[in-house]
Amino acid sequence: MHKGFMVVFDGSNGAGKTTVINEVEKYLISKGLAVTLTREPGGTHIGEKIREIILDPTTPEMCDLAELMLFGAGRAQHIQEKIKPALCAGNIVISDRFDAATFSFQHYARGIDLDTIIQINNLALNGFSPEMNIILDLDPVEGLKRVKSRGEGLDRLEDEKLEFLIKARNGYLMQAKQQPEKFKVVDASQSKEKVLADVINIIDSLIKSSKNDE
Amino acid sequence: MHKGFMVVFDGSNGAGKTTVINEVEKYLISKGLAVTLTREPGGTHIGEKIREIILDPTTPEMCDLAELMLFGAGRAQHIQEKIKPALCAGNIVISDRFDAATFSFQHYARGIDLDTIIQINNLALNGFSPEMNIILDLDPVEGLKRVKSRGEGLDRLEDEKLEFLIKARNGYLMQAKQQPEKFKVVDASQSKEKVLADVINIIDSLIKSSKNDE
Repeated sequence: MHKGFMVVFDGSNGAGKTTVINEVEKYLISKGLAVTLTREPGGTHIGEKIREIILDPTTPEMCDLAELMLFGAGRAQHIQEKIKPALCAGNIVISDRFDAATFSFQHYARGIDLDTIIQINNLALNGFSPEMNIILDLDPVEGLKRVKSRGEGLDRLEDEKLEFLIKARNGYLMQAKQQPEKFKVVDASQSKEKVLADVINIIDSLIKSSKNDE
Repeated sequence: MHKGFMVVFDGSNGAGKTTVINEVEKYLISKGLAVTLTREPGGTHIGEKIREIILDPTTPEMCDLAELMLFGAGRAQHIQEKIKPALCAGNIVISDRFDAATFSFQHYARGIDLDTIIQINNLALNGFSPEMNIILDLDPVEGLKRVKSRGEGLDRLEDEKLEFLIKARNGYLMQAKQQPEKFKVVDASQSKEKVLADVINIIDSLIKSSKNDE
């Protein structure tokens, strides 16, 4: 049995996370590997209910602390109920967003005090950390164009000004710079094929490392 | 204008919180004072949605950390959106439960690490504290009898064993002993009239102090 590991896909809205995650899942299954797909906010029954509260566009009155603690609550439940058991079973856990997004959006974009975020996140993680964050990096102007072309309604967090999205993107790049062993940045302005090839390269290295760790 | 202050009513289920709170509200209004009634978990639109998640009897899988953070999220929102503005307007805020319940149920009854609870609660309070907690103290055997005679379904937190409720009660008494300036214990096994008289005595002292502070 393989040693399980966790990869987070993250980055600007519209950068193609969903498409890439679906392709990566197919790739891993074709190699005979067991995959657990999940997302944040959400991932569990309780987490999905928390997600509804966080993303509800009708509650602009939500204060920063409440939002951070809701993310924390969902993350704690996610790790305990879903992620750790999947890793113990040897699965590869693929999550659409995780804690890097909290730092990018809440700290870098919205300016919430870093210490508060670290405290709440550390409580939620309780010593856990995913093996890798793959950041699909895209100019937010292009990202917004792609999101709008989907014709979907915007949720409370997507309905933000461009300036906010630029700061969030810089937050991802800053985290990647500060923790190069935990972050890989993929240029999401490339063709879908090229983006996927870059991502599969990273995934293949992780599989190789997980075999060496056995 | 009076200086606002906050009083929390707390204690075992079935001790008569709802009845007492309604009578206290009538009493304060009869004295021409402005009252804000609220409760935890809940108190705001977002808080009531969080309350639904916390009390949902179909989610026994909720982990301790997630539960604590959900309480914290609701509390942070409650203080910022409802309690502080009401106090600033000079109102007397009456809350059905607040943070003492978290310590009684999560720490004293369920045994969750005290440091974790204090950290999350301090983050949520962000320096805030209610002026007084009035504990309606009742033997849990009697409390359960009263709850069952109401014929209501039990929620996830009420549906606990007697031993758990005894520990929670001792938690309230312990907190009252440790912080006598923030807690008053009222014997809820007395007649409704006597309980109310004891509570009104405490409320009158608080009104007097709030006048002296002006």
